[in-house]
Amino acid sequence: MIKVGIIGATGYAGEELVRILLQHKEVEICWYGSRSYVNQPYADIFRNLFEVVTDTCLDDNIEELCKKVDVVFTATPQGYCAGILTEEVLCNTKVIDLSADFRIKDVKVYEEWYKLEHKSPQFIEEAVYGLSEINREQVKGARLVANPGCYTTCSILTLYPLVKEGLIDAQSIIVDAKSGTTGAGRGAKVPNLFCEVNENMKAYGVLTHRHTPEIEEQLGYAAGEEIRLIFTPHLVPMNRGILVTAYANLKQPVTYEQVKAVYDKYYQKEKFVRVLGKDVVPETRYVQGSNYVDVGFKLDERTNRIVAMGALDNVVKGAAGQAVQNMNLLFGFAEDEGLGQLPMCF
Amino acid sequence: MIKVGIIGATGYAGEELVRILLQHKEVEICWYGSRSYVNQPYADIFRNLFEVVTDTCLDDNIEELCKKVDVVFTATPQGYCAGILTEEVLCNTKVIDLSADFRIKDVKVYEEWYKLEHKSPQFIEEAVYGLSEINREQVKGARLVANPGCYTTCSILTLYPLVKEGLIDAQSIIVDAKSGTTGAGRGAKVPNLFCEVNENMKAYGVLTHRHTPEIEEQLGYAAGEEIRLIFTPHLVPMNRGILVTAYANLKQPVTYEQVKAVYDKYYQKEKFVRVLGKDVVPETRYVQGSNYVDVGFKLDERTNRIVAMGALDNVVKGAAGQAVQNMNLLFGFAEDEGLGQLPMCF
Amino acid sequence: MIKVGIIGATGYAGEELVRILLQHKEVEICWYGSRSYVNQPYADIFRNLFEVVTDTCLDDNIEELCKKVDVVFTATPQGYCAGILTEEVLCNTKVIDLSADFRIKDVKVYEEWYKLEHKSPQFIEEAVYGLSEINREQVKGARLVANPGCYTTCSILTLYPLVKEGLIDAQSIIVDAKSGTTGAGRGAKVPNLFCEVNENMKAYGVLTHRHTPEIEEQLGYAAGEEIRLIFTPHLVPMNRGILVTAYANLKQPVTYEQVKAVYDKYYQKEKFVRVLGKDVVPETRYVQGSNYVDVGFKLDERTNRIVAMGALDNVVKGAAGQAVQNMNLLFGFAEDEGLGQLPMCF
Amino acid sequence: MIKVGIIGATGYAGEELVRILLQHKEVEICWYGSRSYVNQPYADIFRNLFEVVTDTCLDDNIEELCKKVDVVFTATPQGYCAGILTEEVLCNTKVIDLSADFRIKDVKVYEEWYKLEHKSPQFIEEAVYGLSEINREQVKGARLVANPGCYTTCSILTLYPLVKEGLIDAQSIIVDAKSGTTGAGRGAKVPNLFCEVNENMKAYGVLTHRHTPEIEEQLGYAAGEEIRLIFTPHLVPMNRGILVTAYANLKQPVTYEQVKAVYDKYYQKEKFVRVLGKDVVPETRYVQGSNYVDVGFKLDERTNRIVAMGALDNVVKGAAGQAVQNMNLLFGFAEDEGLGQLPMCF
Repeated sequence: MIKVGIIGATGYAGEELVRILLQHKEVEICWYGSRSYVNQPYADIFRNLFEVVTDTCLDDNIEELCKKVDVVFTATPQGYCAGILTEEVLCNTKVIDLSADFRIKDVKVYEEWYKLEHKSPQFIEEAVYGLSEINREQVKGARLVANPGCYTTCSILTLYPLVKEGLIDAQSIIVDAKSGTTGAGRGAKVPNLFCEVNENMKAYGVLTHRHTPEIEEQLGYAAGEEIRLIFTPHLVPMNRGILVTAYANLKQPVTYEQVKAVYDKYYQKEKFVRVLGKDVVPETRYVQGSNYVDVGFKLDERTNRIVAMGALDNVVKGAAGQAVQNMNLLFGFAEDEGLGQLPMCF
Repeated sequence: MIKVGIIGATGYAGEELVRILLQHKEVEICWYGSRSYVNQPYADIFRNLFEVVTDTCLDDNIEELCKKVDVVFTATPQGYCAGILTEEVLCNTKVIDLSADFRIKDVKVYEEWYKLEHKSPQFIEEAVYGLSEINREQVKGARLVANPGCYTTCSILTLYPLVKEGLIDAQSIIVDAKSGTTGAGRGAKVPNLFCEVNENMKAYGVLTHRHTPEIEEQLGYAAGEEIRLIFTPHLVPMNRGILVTAYANLKQPVTYEQVKAVYDKYYQKEKFVRVLGKDVVPETRYVQGSNYVDVGFKLDERTNRIVAMGALDNVVKGAAGQAVQNMNLLFGFAEDEGLGQLPMCF
Repeated sequence: MIKVGIIGATGYAGEELVRILLQHKEVEICWYGSRSYVNQPYADIFRNLFEVVTDTCLDDNIEELCKKVDVVFTATPQGYCAGILTEEVLCNTKVIDLSADFRIKDVKVYEEWYKLEHKSPQFIEEAVYGLSEINREQVKGARLVANPGCYTTCSILTLYPLVKEGLIDAQSIIVDAKSGTTGAGRGAKVPNLFCEVNENMKAYGVLTHRHTPEIEEQLGYAAGEEIRLIFTPHLVPMNRGILVTAYANLKQPVTYEQVKAVYDKYYQKEKFVRVLGKDVVPETRYVQGSNYVDVGFKLDERTNRIVAMGALDNVVKGAAGQAVQNMNLLFGFAEDEGLGQLPMCF
Repeated sequence: MIKVGIIGATGYAGEELVRILLQHKEVEICWYGSRSYVNQPYADIFRNLFEVVTDTCLDDNIEELCKKVDVVFTATPQGYCAGILTEEVLCNTKVIDLSADFRIKDVKVYEEWYKLEHKSPQFIEEAVYGLSEINREQVKGARLVANPGCYTTCSILTLYPLVKEGLIDAQSIIVDAKSGTTGAGRGAKVPNLFCEVNENMKAYGVLTHRHTPEIEEQLGYAAGEEIRLIFTPHLVPMNRGILVTAYANLKQPVTYEQVKAVYDKYYQKEKFVRVLGKDVVPETRYVQGSNYVDVGFKLDERTNRIVAMGALDNVVKGAAGQAVQNMNLLFGFAEDEGLGQLPMCF
């Protein structure tokens, strides 16, 4: 039984962390951190947890918190975690950061895309990029885990085997992604009001979205070269789910079976990545509420390209679920402990 | 470990049974019954269960099925269960019927509201109405459980303490209910198409909906008198959830505290019924995916009436979850085994 | 050709006024008032009007505005119109107020329900309650029109013939209303975010909603007695539409034909009120985008009650459309000018 | 005043034709054709038109119909129009076919992608592809107009200036398209049920969608070469709207201003095509209910590609609206007659 603290427990990712951890056998949540709701009962904000959680929200206090708990999750805006992290904190507790602060190794790239000064670049080097399926072993020994972004997790897992095995021209990649609106956060902004999002679809952050360099960096490691790709996110009138439709030029003609074998090589033993059968496309509903990523692909002989598709629940595998998966790795629990919820497809 | 068969496993309630039972420690599903999809892999229809369920759908065969399993769930259209039930079946297995066939004691009332001839009225008498919180002890010893309707569960649990304790004039009850569209079933009908339901709201079955006599009968037992009430269901553009707003005349002036005490008397020890605090109203999202029913009320001094409200997930507490709760009672498992999923409020 | 100014042009009702008036043959919009967006092109906020509207938003300035235009629409928060109204304004221009400031004749009732001090009670007396179908003649000669609320328009038109003709016990009325989320306004608040409203249903303002006294007052005039009723609004995950389901005790047994005749007596000649056929229920989609109100009813012999139902588009007949209808009456235009848009049912 | 007949008046495109034509000053609808609802009042199926349309649905009878009306719209499944068309029909009336039967000049391509034998290939040659903005002059003199598909209209108008002016490598085009669910038609199929579409997103028809050859053919004319491109449609949980996000390699570096000038060259005088300002992206809500197409673009120096985006209402500009625009051209009416409805953005 370990003790856990959450900073930013009243955002969507924060609530999902709470919900998942409450169903985790090895964990006790000791700190429901929320600046906006200090001293309010947590279950007053998320009334789904009425009679389940009786704790009250606490203000941030990393010095106190790090001495109390075995691991801290920061489900906070960009820049926050970098602003509070110290050697002392990391000596006292593990940190799993759900923001982007420690995802990108080149601090200049971070500062350029995020328009923020990085407050603790000295920890970037040691931070482990927590894409569990790919960096499993490194995560196990980490003090600081940079939990991947929602779009990035979906984009990378969809393309990783193709890039790693050199089937596609990595410079030709185009990622067209679609996300449910929890991805836009729980802040009170007009563009996220029900009547602005409902019955609408749009692209946003075209060519400037901050998950772009993260995808490029990670796929670059797989490719063994620097990559430049296009990433276009879209907002969809649904709560949860990311769907990635990725396009790339094939380096040389391949058969369905060859590509399937490449996907299976990397994912057959992975519980949370499901490679769909021939001609089956991922749908976000089939992963909803679960930690699964579903991937599929189709080959286009007419244009010598591949269309690779992936779907995940942005709040689970794209945020809180993967964070718990990383926690399980850090503490030697079964990797899927607490993550057994089957997808609710309606 | 018991063995379970499901007839009608590919409707919405059927799938939810599968999903819940797969997460139940004491159960093995042996029969995925579905006439429409015989011989097709179950996970081809509900692809959320890809790599989880590898079984194939089987045709109905109650004679064979009843010898193989400890309990059969029938998540089938009205009339089906009554049509297959025999003494031999009930000697071999327990039956939990999610249809209305054995809910109503007076077969004439059933036949009048359902416009069906009842094929096995001889089993009506022994069938136990499976509203777990109210008929817990009778359920334990039953062979045949009539699992309550979704609207009825919500309506009855919302009003039961008020009627039982005589706080309201039971003849003055008006139940205005709103349901998500899973309640309309998975049949291919134009009125249930996305573009017909989305961005729309309507009443349906006004004064003729078949849950009316079921609510009347059960609340009549609580009242100790025959009841006539108005029940109006509405279709809401969301997948899951029922919200009941019920109105009744108070027999005499009461205080908030008095009414609260009456609710607490019946529900304080009930895990799955949550009596909300003062001025808090139930919302369907706060019970979504869970077996909870949330109830609340407000007193109107101006008109001497009470507004009582309840919310549940129609597919869980309104169907599959309550069926599993009844199964737990039948077999002596912990009543909440398999039903621990916390509500997903977004 | 008259000149029109709108204060509050960037809320939902304000935009709908703009959209309707742009399609009105006799009107030129001269003032797009919006405090939040002063000096911004109107079409930057509502980009549906790109290349259609080239004007820029102006700050409030009633002194200047009232001299420029023939009529001012105030689509503003409660208290605003009462705060700016003067004799001088009313000598210069007509005012159609979409807020509640002049709807309620008893200023104490207004102040009690709205928790606001009324800043210009001297104009309450002369203000005409702009429910066009009922107060048509009075509207024609008014200087100040109090445009009715969305819920109230739907509730009153649904019940008016029944109350006026004495078919029902007016003290027994219960109005259960459901509204799309444009009714909650365009303010940036967490409870109105997409992910908080979507896949959810709840009541709100139970027994305290401010449209209650407005419905009571107007139906009271029809009944010839003071009325106390229950009004419960609910929030529905759709953009537009109000559905009212109203319940009342019949004073004496009546036939379908008798009640139908009563509805026809008041509405047969009304273009915008459609009395549906037997057993047809109103659906919000069938009035969407239009100025129609659809009403229907069913009689319950079992309980001697009536269920009366009504549907309208809260932004059109419930706000901007009715305001334009009133403007047409004020200036002697055809009452349906600019209001010819047929409902978009999907 | 011309007379109009509609075959297939009870599908989504058919209803939209009715709704638009009812608001058209020069038209009288004489034939509401619907095989599924013969002899039923049209307003019983689309109750938004209660008290507006009093006609009854008629069965197909092209011989009779073609003698009665000046123009026939066929809003029917693929193959239907080709099956009924004869020289006699075309001598008697104009035909605007909303299906794909006459869109593709090479009958083999049609038969391969549609898996249908073409029943009247002799009329393919004379049929004019009714993309009004591009083929305006040819449409004017046509007997038979092949009204373009919804995806194709959006895809072509988004890319046309770029292809025509040779700014992009036409062989590099990737069109990622997203559509509301009216695009899936009004047939009663499980995958189009509310609970299957809601809270979900998926691609479909990947690499096999039948709008692919239509886009290729038309853009091929603009390019002056045969084109092979990738087109991927997705289903979105909303009623109306198509969003196209298209990607292509730039032939050589260009500035924003250069590209903008190219778009303006083709669209500045086009009422229904709006070229958005710099950094503004199309959103489907801003064209909802209208005949507009909104287009925008962004240049990516990092990859030397362009992202071009377009949005339209699939039922209006993507079907019925464009059909009426073509009718206006055929009969010499103002091109925008009947098409003045401003977008309803919520």
